Amino acid sequence: MELDALPFDVFAKNCPSRGTLEHVTGRWGVLTLGALHESSLRFNELRRRVDGVSEKMLSQTLHALERDGLVHREAQLTNPPRVDYSLTPLGREVSERLLSLIECVEGRMEDVLRARERYDETRGAR
Amino acid sequence: MELDALPFDVFAKNCPSRGTLEHVTGRWGVLTLGALHESSLRFNELRRRVDGVSEKMLSQTLHALERDGLVHREAQLTNPPRVDYSLTPLGREVSERLLSLIECVEGRMEDVLRARERYDETRGAR
Repeated sequence: MELDALPFDVFAKNCPSRGTLEHVTGRWGVLTLGALHESSLRFNELRRRVDGVSEKMLSQTLHALERDGLVHREAQLTNPPRVDYSLTPLGREVSERLLSLIECVEGRMEDVLRARERYDETRGAR
Repeated sequence: MELDALPFDVFAKNCPSRGTLEHVTGRWGVLTLGALHESSLRFNELRRRVDGVSEKMLSQTLHALERDGLVHREAQLTNPPRVDYSLTPLGREVSERLLSLIECVEGRMEDVLRARERYDETRGAR
């Protein structure tokens, strides 16, 4: 399969890049990659950092990110076994962009909340 | 309410910034903001550009983005009525970061697909 010849376009429904975009922008994908941007973490550390995620959802999220080559899973042969998750170089490229987005959103939330108030006043909040 | 005093943190489950992050990173939010980054568009133009979105989901997505102050909706008093959607300055700040993410994902999809092949070979594809 000559991958070099394929143009990737997230706007096209069947392009595989859309699936990867969904993994990295999914509800838990963004926060998992954002958390791992700071440091490598063990499963339970990640679960605490990504407040609100269930064990099942975090596990699914990590599998999808590992399969896409964004997250590296390292199991240590200790007792009890210890598993560390870290970003691959590709995962880091993605997480840098997500961090920039997260900082933008956090930094502009006052404007967002004011916009919501205006919207609800003029449109009639339910 | 003294908004200036609030620290916003998307990692905290109940922080309002998490909801906004979900609007802009949601399945259709990313693509809608990405499409509007190129030009302002009418509803049906957007629907064609965001391949695969239903009328209902696009409508919900636009409402959430408009309420958060990211998208501007301009109804013209013509017959038939014409409604244009465009980015606000805040929406443009966000869309620039999303475009950077989209370009990163599209540009690295060959690596992602190779990673998937390796993963499926070693873990056993179902």
